[in-house]
Amino acid sequence: MKEEYVTLAHGAGGKKTAQLIETVFRAAFENPYFTADDAAVLRVPQGELAMTTDSFIVSPAFFPGGNIGKLSICGTVNDLACMGAEPLYMTCGFIIEEGFPLEKLKKVAEAMSQTAREAGVLLVAGDTKVVGKGQADGVFINTTGIGRIMDGIRTSGALARPGDVIIVTGDVGRHGCTILLEREDFGIEADIKSDCAPLWKAVRSVLLEVPDVHVIRDATRGGVGTVLYEIAGQSGVGCELNSEAVPVDPAVRGVCGMLGLEPLYLACEGTMVMIAPGDKADRILDILHGSPHTQGARAIGKITKEEAGRVVMRTRIGALTLLPPPGGELLPRIC
Amino acid sequence: MKEEYVTLAHGAGGKKTAQLIETVFRAAFENPYFTADDAAVLRVPQGELAMTTDSFIVSPAFFPGGNIGKLSICGTVNDLACMGAEPLYMTCGFIIEEGFPLEKLKKVAEAMSQTAREAGVLLVAGDTKVVGKGQADGVFINTTGIGRIMDGIRTSGALARPGDVIIVTGDVGRHGCTILLEREDFGIEADIKSDCAPLWKAVRSVLLEVPDVHVIRDATRGGVGTVLYEIAGQSGVGCELNSEAVPVDPAVRGVCGMLGLEPLYLACEGTMVMIAPGDKADRILDILHGSPHTQGARAIGKITKEEAGRVVMRTRIGALTLLPPPGGELLPRIC
Repeated sequence: MKEEYVTLAHGAGGKKTAQLIETVFRAAFENPYFTADDAAVLRVPQGELAMTTDSFIVSPAFFPGGNIGKLSICGTVNDLACMGAEPLYMTCGFIIEEGFPLEKLKKVAEAMSQTAREAGVLLVAGDTKVVGKGQADGVFINTTGIGRIMDGIRTSGALARPGDVIIVTGDVGRHGCTILLEREDFGIEADIKSDCAPLWKAVRSVLLEVPDVHVIRDATRGGVGTVLYEIAGQSGVGCELNSEAVPVDPAVRGVCGMLGLEPLYLACEGTMVMIAPGDKADRILDILHGSPHTQGARAIGKITKEEAGRVVMRTRIGALTLLPPPGGELLPRIC
Repeated sequence: MKEEYVTLAHGAGGKKTAQLIETVFRAAFENPYFTADDAAVLRVPQGELAMTTDSFIVSPAFFPGGNIGKLSICGTVNDLACMGAEPLYMTCGFIIEEGFPLEKLKKVAEAMSQTAREAGVLLVAGDTKVVGKGQADGVFINTTGIGRIMDGIRTSGALARPGDVIIVTGDVGRHGCTILLEREDFGIEADIKSDCAPLWKAVRSVLLEVPDVHVIRDATRGGVGTVLYEIAGQSGVGCELNSEAVPVDPAVRGVCGMLGLEPLYLACEGTMVMIAPGDKADRILDILHGSPHTQGARAIGKITKEEAGRVVMRTRIGALTLLPPPGGELLPRIC
C-alpha cells in the first residue's frame, strides 16, 4: 500500500475501503467464515448462547503489555468467559481518525488476530469507519462476541452466598497502573506491564472440575473493588477481604503508595474475581496455578451474611474497616 | 437526573455509569434478556445464524427522517435481512463525547428502542464509553446483530445470474442527499427526508413466497452504484440498467442536477437491491408494494453475461453508457 496514513476515502465505502480491508484486516483475520457479504453465516452448536459487546477507547493505544487490539479481544473473550461461555465468534468495528498511521493499524490487527487465535475465537465480520482529523482520537474498536455456555453452568453476580470464598486470578490493578504511568508524567519510573490476557482457557479448566462456581467477573473499569461492591449489591451479601492476602505487584503498590491510590480500584484486564463454595477454594487455586495467565491467583476473602451490600477489609491487626465505595471518575479511557 | 450533560464520570465504570445505564438505556431497552452481568444469556433456535456489525458516526446525528439511533438499528437489521436472516438479538456500544446533552442521548435511545420494536429485534447487551471533549464528535454507536437465516434461503453477492432482474426497493440516494444538505450550506432549499427504515418485514414477505432470490444488498455507503459494481465483480456478470426506470425523488434529482452528483452513488438507508430470476420480477414487486417502506420498489435492469464486472446504463435513446466505477471519497460520515 502506498499511503502511509488512513484517509477519509478509506472509510467512504468505495474502492479504498475495500483495499484497506483486503490489505490490513483480511490479511490478519482470514478464516473460512470471514465474509464479503453483509453478514457472516455461522453454524452454532445447540444450547444457550452468551452475547456481549464492548467498545475500546484506551489512551494511549499502545502500552507496555499490549495495545488496543489485544485489549479488544481479551475484553470480550473474558466477558464471555465470565458467563462460562466458550467464545465462538466475534465481530470488530473500527472507528479510525483520519491520519492514523497504517503501520500502527496493521500492528493492532495482528495483535487481534494473535489473541483471537490464543483464545480460540474466530473473527467473522468487521466494519471500518473513518472520521475527520480531531473527530476521534486515534482508533476506537468495538468487539462483540457470542459464545456457547458450558452445560450446567450458571454464573451471575446475584449468586454469591455466605461462606463462599473470594478468589482473584492474579495480582490486581496492573492494567490501570500501566495506563496511568503511560499517560501522566509523574516522574515515576516503574517496570509495570498491563495484565491484559485472554482467560477463557483458565476459566474452562476450573469449570470442568468445579461446575458450581457462583460468580465470575472480570475486574476491568473500576477494578476489583467496584466488582465486589456490585456483587454485594446484586447478591445482598457482604464481602470480607483479608487485606494481607490481596496480591499486588510490588511496583504497583509503590506507585499507589506515592499517588495515594487504592490498587483494588485500578483496572485489571487479565484478572478476574471468582466466587465459589468455600470448600472448593483449594481445588480452584490449584487449577488456576497451572494455567499461564493465572499463576498469581489467591483467595482474598469470603462472602458474609453480615455487612450486606458492603465490602470490608480485615487489617493486619484484625480490625475491620470499610473499603470506601466506588466514587465518580476513576481514570478515563482505561479500556 | 440532575446533570444535563454526559461527563467523563459517566464512562468511568463507577456509580455514574450505572446511573446513566439505568436512566437512559434500561428505561428504553428493558426486556427480559437485558442484563447486569457481563453478557446476555440467549436461547437461539436451531439452524444457521447470520452475524453482522456496524459502527455509526453519521454527522449530524439528527437529520430529517431519523437520527443516529434509528439509523444504528436499521443498518444492522437490514444487513441481517440481506442474508435472509430474521433479526433476533442486538447489542449496542456507545462512545460519547464529554458534554453531549443527556436529552439528546435519551432521544437516541428512544429511537433505537422504537425501531428495534418495529423490526422485532431485542437489544440484549450494551456498553458505554465516554471520551474527553474533542476526542470524539458527539456520539458514535456500534450495533451488532445475530439473526436466524430462513430455511432454504441462500443469498450472496456471488449468486447473480444472467437473465436475473435487478430491483430496487425504493427511490435511490435519499439518505445521502439529506445528509449532504444538512451538512453543507449550498443555499439549496429542498424537502428531502432520509429513507432510513428497517426492511426485515418486507424482505421476509418476499422470501416466504419467492425463496430463490439470489442477491439482497442494502445500498448504504456508496449507494446502489457501488453495490452493483460489487455484485458484478463477485458474480462475474454485467449489470444493465434502464436509466429511465431508476426511481429518484424529484427533489433529490434536482439537488443532484445542481451539484453534478449521480443519485446512484448516494447512500440509501432504507432501500435495497434485490436480484432474482427474471420471471419472478412481477411477484416480488407486488409483494414489496404491499409493505410500508417499499411501496416505491421498481425493476431497474437486468443481469447480463456481457459487460462482466461492469454496470452499464441504457439511455432514453437506446445507447449503452458505462456507469463510471465508484471512486474514492464519496461523502464522509454518511452513516
